[in-house]
Amino acid sequence: MKKANNMVIAQSGGPSMVINESLVGAVLAARSKRTGARIGRIYGAVHGIAGILARDYVDLRKVSEKKLMAIAATPSSALGSCRLKPTREDCRRIFEEFRRLSVGYFFYIGGNDSADAARIVAEEAEKDGYPLVCFHIPKTIDNDLRSCDHTPGFGSAARFVASAVKGDDLDNRALGGVKIDVVMGRDAGFLTAASALARERPDDGPHLIYLPEVPFSEDRFVKDVKAAMKKYGRCVIAVSEGIRGKDGVAIGAKLGSGEVDSHGNVQMSGTGALGDALAQLVKTKAGVKRVRADTFGYLQRSFPGVRSRTDAEEAFFAGAAAVRAALESGVTKGTIGILREDGRAYRVAYAARPIADAAKETRSLPREFIAKNGHDVTQAFIDYARPLVGELPACAVI
Amino acid sequence: MKKANNMVIAQSGGPSMVINESLVGAVLAARSKRTGARIGRIYGAVHGIAGILARDYVDLRKVSEKKLMAIAATPSSALGSCRLKPTREDCRRIFEEFRRLSVGYFFYIGGNDSADAARIVAEEAEKDGYPLVCFHIPKTIDNDLRSCDHTPGFGSAARFVASAVKGDDLDNRALGGVKIDVVMGRDAGFLTAASALARERPDDGPHLIYLPEVPFSEDRFVKDVKAAMKKYGRCVIAVSEGIRGKDGVAIGAKLGSGEVDSHGNVQMSGTGALGDALAQLVKTKAGVKRVRADTFGYLQRSFPGVRSRTDAEEAFFAGAAAVRAALESGVTKGTIGILREDGRAYRVAYAARPIADAAKETRSLPREFIAKNGHDVTQAFIDYARPLVGELPACAVI
Repeated sequence: MKKANNMVIAQSGGPSMVINESLVGAVLAARSKRTGARIGRIYGAVHGIAGILARDYVDLRKVSEKKLMAIAATPSSALGSCRLKPTREDCRRIFEEFRRLSVGYFFYIGGNDSADAARIVAEEAEKDGYPLVCFHIPKTIDNDLRSCDHTPGFGSAARFVASAVKGDDLDNRALGGVKIDVVMGRDAGFLTAASALARERPDDGPHLIYLPEVPFSEDRFVKDVKAAMKKYGRCVIAVSEGIRGKDGVAIGAKLGSGEVDSHGNVQMSGTGALGDALAQLVKTKAGVKRVRADTFGYLQRSFPGVRSRTDAEEAFFAGAAAVRAALESGVTKGTIGILREDGRAYRVAYAARPIADAAKETRSLPREFIAKNGHDVTQAFIDYARPLVGELPACAVI
Repeated sequence: MKKANNMVIAQSGGPSMVINESLVGAVLAARSKRTGARIGRIYGAVHGIAGILARDYVDLRKVSEKKLMAIAATPSSALGSCRLKPTREDCRRIFEEFRRLSVGYFFYIGGNDSADAARIVAEEAEKDGYPLVCFHIPKTIDNDLRSCDHTPGFGSAARFVASAVKGDDLDNRALGGVKIDVVMGRDAGFLTAASALARERPDDGPHLIYLPEVPFSEDRFVKDVKAAMKKYGRCVIAVSEGIRGKDGVAIGAKLGSGEVDSHGNVQMSGTGALGDALAQLVKTKAGVKRVRADTFGYLQRSFPGVRSRTDAEEAFFAGAAAVRAALESGVTKGTIGILREDGRAYRVAYAARPIADAAKETRSLPREFIAKNGHDVTQAFIDYARPLVGELPACAVI
């Protein structure tokens, strides 16, 4: 059999503001005469591996560079997405399809579940003796891949969250009471923690931050709110959708629809139930009259015009790095790690790492980023996150 | 008694992205040697007329022009806000306070309830024989003042809504199913209608738009969703928080907390109840598996960095126009109308109008802006709204 030199690339999991940067970074690297000389056809599978199973592709050599650059700047997954964990039988059908199309390279852009899907495909290919180079390209607004200092998508989503909380804090200054903002992040508190970047002045909100990493206690919460009301005369709260009690069960999941995807994740976003329940708690137990709750929802990952420049650039380079690693590293399966270099100036390096480092198990917000009081972040977190998010619009108060 | 030449200015009602532009426009006009030569001290009352009753002021002559410009660019009400309808007794205390401070000019920035508060103060002053020039400066993201072609605050909030729905439509393209976005607007559908500006391509969402002006029927809604799913294979829906059944009662108000302010307005924002109820309806009656609902909430009126340039400029000039009208028109009470001039190019004029034209009763989305099918807007609305919102970031699809 002639060496299969065509490639398939696809996107999977939740979209982000910059996942298309990674797609375009990879496609342009594959189209470049220097890097991608060995690459033949470039198939974009529509809706992730579901598109391979359905033989649904876009010819990514035919799309003009101008259009590709416009797509890179567009939020959400241009090829469509899916949340599918491939079975052994799915893999068998995928390799049949790859054989038909002479595909030797497979790139899958996504979070830990997508990395796990890529790992399964790579391992099944080895078992079946199908010659495949398979690379995962990191993406997740949750920032919870063990293989990266931070993940493409996080900086832009964090920028949205910090901006939203900053505006909301000004709104709360004007009308008072308690405002609760529910932030995405199923298991990791990075995105909720980023709300702290909203602060410019000592009395700016968020005044309280609740993370999935710290067991949530209703009594403690009510006490915290009362103390903040006493101190500031008002209170802005950032809460992760993933907060959980001592039993480890996410409170939002108990209140939600119970819907579960094929990776076993329970639906938490796209409902206001957690925010409403917490608002009710503040009204009845903390005796505050004006209480409002907003759930930021999907806007956090797909709002056009709000993106971090650093995040966008890194997403692009992560895509390009995967193609280079696939062609030049001699490794047949891997993920791209984004590593922060030592030194005062912010700089990153991209490196091929074992695909398993990104798959399945996620990482949490490290202990040194969580304040001792359990409802705030540390300066170490601010120093970590600021370069990823960039400066926010300055806001003045009288 | 010597002619009282000091002024009080205050902000009231819900904040907006550009209400501080109006504050700063008025203050700079009052500080200008040409326009404001007759003005003495400039008191900013903190938290609206509540600040007058509490004798809580900021000296707005002392704030530097640089700081004022930074405040103008900041969302929310820098002086703080309130939702207070002044009683006869409140007015008596206000005039006592005005007499003490030699206040002859009063400016109140806000929506229809704030205009009504200003009207009450002006009329009580006449009854009491207190010599006061009283002007309302228009502000409302709802765009529902009868005195204006459009109101300061609307363009920026509409820009947020259209951007959010545009991103959300891309998100929905990637993962499919039904997405419901609940938009602010207690009685008028302008802001929800603005979601239509998100569309670039014929199959772009929002695919369905539900307005408070069209009686909402659950059966009709379910049929519409089924038809849209058949046509597009997915469905993005913009729903006003103020949709009401045939009985005229807002559905969100029935689901909400029942909280009522002193103007008689029932709380609707700051809860996800309406979105969750509609999502449940789609799941059970339209048989769609993946249904998500987001309630945009307070982000619509206070998100830093998302604003319409036209809206910001007009808000500034409306503030300045009020001071000029107070000093030069010879009228002792009024509001500033923003009128769109005839002709192809977009241009507006500012004019003093009777304060009652802005007070209490609001205007609805005119019939010619509502599509015959009852779940969309017309091209006439798009032509009306586009110059107020400006061009959105372009988004490309493969």
